[in-house]
Amino acid sequence: VTWSTGRVAIDSTFGVAIVGYTEGRLTRAVDRALRRLEGRTGITFVRDTAPRDTSRAQLVVRAGKAGMAVQGVEEDESYALDVGTRVTLSASTVVGVMRGLETVLQLVDADTAGYYLPGVSIQDKPRFPWRGLLIDVCRHFQSVAVIERNLDAMAAVKLNVLHWHLSEDQGFRVESKKYPKLHQLGSDGLYYTQDEIREVVAYARDRGIRVVPEFDMPAHSSSWFVGYPQYASAPGPFVIERAFGVHDAVFDPSRDEVYAFIDGFIGEMAPLFPDVYFHIGGDEANGKEWNANARIQAFMRTKGFKDNEALQAYFNQRLEKILEKHNKHMVGWDEILHPDLPHNVVVQSWRGQASLAQGAKAGHLGILSAPYYLDAMRSSEYHYGADPLPDSVGLAPADAARVLGGEVCMWGEIVTPETIDSRIWPRSAAVAERFWSASTVMDVDDMYRRLSVVSVELEELGLVHESSSARLLRRLVPGQHIGPLVTLVSALEPVNLGGRMNVNPATQLTPLTALSDAAVPDPRARREVAALVKTFLANPAQGGGYRAQLTGIFDDWREQRPGVTALAALSPAVREALPQSADLADLGTMGLEAMGYLAAGTVAPADWKARATALLERAQQRRAHMRFAVMEPMRALLLAARP
Amino acid sequence: VTWSTGRVAIDSTFGVAIVGYTEGRLTRAVDRALRRLEGRTGITFVRDTAPRDTSRAQLVVRAGKAGMAVQGVEEDESYALDVGTRVTLSASTVVGVMRGLETVLQLVDADTAGYYLPGVSIQDKPRFPWRGLLIDVCRHFQSVAVIERNLDAMAAVKLNVLHWHLSEDQGFRVESKKYPKLHQLGSDGLYYTQDEIREVVAYARDRGIRVVPEFDMPAHSSSWFVGYPQYASAPGPFVIERAFGVHDAVFDPSRDEVYAFIDGFIGEMAPLFPDVYFHIGGDEANGKEWNANARIQAFMRTKGFKDNEALQAYFNQRLEKILEKHNKHMVGWDEILHPDLPHNVVVQSWRGQASLAQGAKAGHLGILSAPYYLDAMRSSEYHYGADPLPDSVGLAPADAARVLGGEVCMWGEIVTPETIDSRIWPRSAAVAERFWSASTVMDVDDMYRRLSVVSVELEELGLVHESSSARLLRRLVPGQHIGPLVTLVSALEPVNLGGRMNVNPATQLTPLTALSDAAVPDPRARREVAALVKTFLANPAQGGGYRAQLTGIFDDWREQRPGVTALAALSPAVREALPQSADLADLGTMGLEAMGYLAAGTVAPADWKARATALLERAQQRRAHMRFAVMEPMRALLLAARP
Repeated sequence: VTWSTGRVAIDSTFGVAIVGYTEGRLTRAVDRALRRLEGRTGITFVRDTAPRDTSRAQLVVRAGKAGMAVQGVEEDESYALDVGTRVTLSASTVVGVMRGLETVLQLVDADTAGYYLPGVSIQDKPRFPWRGLLIDVCRHFQSVAVIERNLDAMAAVKLNVLHWHLSEDQGFRVESKKYPKLHQLGSDGLYYTQDEIREVVAYARDRGIRVVPEFDMPAHSSSWFVGYPQYASAPGPFVIERAFGVHDAVFDPSRDEVYAFIDGFIGEMAPLFPDVYFHIGGDEANGKEWNANARIQAFMRTKGFKDNEALQAYFNQRLEKILEKHNKHMVGWDEILHPDLPHNVVVQSWRGQASLAQGAKAGHLGILSAPYYLDAMRSSEYHYGADPLPDSVGLAPADAARVLGGEVCMWGEIVTPETIDSRIWPRSAAVAERFWSASTVMDVDDMYRRLSVVSVELEELGLVHESSSARLLRRLVPGQHIGPLVTLVSALEPVNLGGRMNVNPATQLTPLTALSDAAVPDPRARREVAALVKTFLANPAQGGGYRAQLTGIFDDWREQRPGVTALAALSPAVREALPQSADLADLGTMGLEAMGYLAAGTVAPADWKARATALLERAQQRRAHMRFAVMEPMRALLLAARP
Repeated sequence: VTWSTGRVAIDSTFGVAIVGYTEGRLTRAVDRALRRLEGRTGITFVRDTAPRDTSRAQLVVRAGKAGMAVQGVEEDESYALDVGTRVTLSASTVVGVMRGLETVLQLVDADTAGYYLPGVSIQDKPRFPWRGLLIDVCRHFQSVAVIERNLDAMAAVKLNVLHWHLSEDQGFRVESKKYPKLHQLGSDGLYYTQDEIREVVAYARDRGIRVVPEFDMPAHSSSWFVGYPQYASAPGPFVIERAFGVHDAVFDPSRDEVYAFIDGFIGEMAPLFPDVYFHIGGDEANGKEWNANARIQAFMRTKGFKDNEALQAYFNQRLEKILEKHNKHMVGWDEILHPDLPHNVVVQSWRGQASLAQGAKAGHLGILSAPYYLDAMRSSEYHYGADPLPDSVGLAPADAARVLGGEVCMWGEIVTPETIDSRIWPRSAAVAERFWSASTVMDVDDMYRRLSVVSVELEELGLVHESSSARLLRRLVPGQHIGPLVTLVSALEPVNLGGRMNVNPATQLTPLTALSDAAVPDPRARREVAALVKTFLANPAQGGGYRAQLTGIFDDWREQRPGVTALAALSPAVREALPQSADLADLGTMGLEAMGYLAAGTVAPADWKARATALLERAQQRRAHMRFAVMEPMRALLLAARP
């Protein structure tokens, strides 16, 4: 990136010339970009009756060629962008142009003279070729509309693989014409028709995104066996599981008819999903049904398998041959890594960089997921800091080249169509930058500054991650002012999946309309309070605008309590947050008192210290599936006042 | 309605017994109601493995029969509901049960003991059998998802007809396999496939809602002629019109091949839309192309037609015969009313109750739309007060019986998928009550009290009318706090369609992402300020909580100005609202001053009076396609201080 002094104004004359290679995918992408630019600026651009030539175009787009017929990891996504007297965007492929168009939209700026693109010269290409988002539509189903709006958001941040987790103990989500009982009995009626699958795949391709389907085998497979119990390792009958976690249902690897069934199924799915990669899961087979099945035990003895890992490796080898027959490369989770695993299999690591490195050294291509589990409810900062190829793993260049990239994972236990966006975004945008940009791009403050803008802009694509919290809060107390609840929830974040399952575990049937569903991970207040407290503590006696800001926040915390209490009397669903409402009010009160002691240079009295200690302990606790996101700065502030 | 002291608690044991007639439509409706009840209360209900018997069910549902195979105006929608030791819901038909289930959901209450249904006995049935919502998907296309969420909302407030306006100068929105150039050339690619039409019709039937299609003829028909210019009255070529208003394109009523084409088209559409009614538009034929076509003029002379009305009556008669052949009853707008019009034609009045009464006296069935145009941007109170059968029209009972009901109309000029909900809801819920309940149910304050609850509850169905304003504001100033804009916009409302087209007219291509799109009609502030000012003026010297509330609002108005000014420097799209931001600040300042003078019993100085007059005049003006919704109370307050 080289900045220059030029600028290109965006006004109603703004228009595009496409020179060089063109096709429908390119013109549609350009058209979408123009419409978004209109929406952001409120300016209606003049429609051209004839194509513009470069002399009259503010944006000149030049693609060399279409790119791959079926997009793959070898796709050239690079582009060059120059903003001078006009904007010139050049790329070898249509996909490269799409990446560049998103950069153009990110560059839009404004001052009193109006909207404009600032002078700049950019040469850009991705660090990793596999930049994915996994969406689990099995624990909770997500409609085509939800998938498509997330594809739009992925394209906006240059992610290029939708890893679509389509089968699970809790649901089988694709129509099978060959084995119709899969979707008919395994989905509660919540599945994608094959037409819908084709629509989504085409929608993704139109945005330069690959779709890699995952059908999890041999375990996580209860929903298959509701309709086809004959392929399981236990007699059944099986039901769609409602509880989350590891279930026992597992394919029987010892019988040829099982592979014939899988072959038939994959043969049906292979053309539906044109991507060359096909994910077979392979995780968390607990082996209980294998252990309990005498015939399988006998089979293992015959084959000389020492353990269930060997049995699963055998299953994977046969699976790999089936995939090969259908011209697919196999992808699976960590567990499939085994000395007998063919080298052309891609290993997706949910166990971490070390496990990934182990696979790469063994000659396998790899994808990292471990640090990008969104249900861990970590901060954007945390995910941003996790590199797929940290120096610490010390891979030789040839091994390092086998690390294709990474995937953000949105597992579906605790998300609905209404809340899923707020779990995926904006955090995934930070990871997308980690996958695309150099490992040296690491300025967290700058990342958050840009993230707050990008997050809002993503909603123009139909996402609801910024809107859903207030929606849910309004519905908890219909007709009432939600101000007190907004204040309370803004200081809280949802606990992670483990925490969610420890207390009052949710199932697929639990309504996800509670305060903890309105709370968002890594809320803005976390960073705001941390920054203000840090500045204050640097010189408590000094004045400054940040003091008023911090005081204002603490006042709001105190004032939410009577409001929340009144709302809880009307709405029993609010009642579970009363302890946290009280704690937040106390944090506000003691925060103000601490500021007072520190500013005056006086020492807090002994009983105040005791109360502060008790409050910090109390507020640290998780309740109503939420925890305070502001404990770190509040601990620092209160401890500073009781040295 | 008879209230009693009983109550039925809603806890995890809550369950339903279906006794008597049952079918999929009924069980799905019951299931949807249970899921919404779970969402509202946050309680997971125990799932039954076997059907409940009445002794273990908190809700007993009894339907007599399915109801009509194709729902019609004769459908029995009545139900009886009794909440005592358990809830008993009985209805003659499945549709009646659906209406009753919505009442059950509206009855949910809560206190410190938890959620419950209060004791009550209700005998209920609709006043009018035709309670519709027109959605124009032509000026701006609306996806299936938008239509379906609005169908859910319609069902929630007991509306029962979706009048789907499917063709216009600006777009032809249905796939035709017989005449594919209709959707291929007339829609910009934005149309419903026949599969999607069937899906929507089935979705509507599942909710007790009829779907009446409208294909507007002979005028409002430019988009037909893009592909089929040979059926127009002028030679063409024709284009999809981008400007709104009345265009000249019109079918040629003088040629038999035109009727053959229409016959073929209606023959294709008839089975797609099973409803017995079929709307042919018939409005705003300006006759210009007829006047300019010598052959048509000669045809009129041959037939002895004195004027274009006679020509259109001839067209309608032939159209009516075509519809009859396909077993459809014709519906059209006011203009089709003509002495030669067959009696079995239904007239939909956009001109008012008098026009409707005229049709009823002439023997036609009628539907009222005139007072329910949502693009007029009137208040819920205004629409609520408009009765389809006011005493003033003085119809004899036999004539009055011909008034089937009414339709709320959502014309599509200034709405997108993002804003349409906020134009339809919650105002249409007030009209729905007008159509369903007795004309004597007229308590406006009570209506607004209930409306504020219902509005929020409707969002549980996926609507975005409460959420879209903040969404749009955030996107105008990405990454900035929107508080000042929220305050400004909350006091404003969008101007009506006429006002919108007078200044800087919008076309189909105008981005609808401005402040005026974030503003909502009949904002809450209108009533709040009016009520507070009224209370204050009743006794200005007296204290009371309402004084602090009013002062708080005026303070907010003053304080938004610097914030909005700062945001306008970053976002040129905000700049157009600067004059109104200044006016609102002045209204706040002078409002506070007026309260001071009035409370003290002093007279405002002469120059203050002059400034107040000037401000009231200034603030009355429409700018940026918005007007202040608080002028009435502010005028009263300021005038009171300068008697």
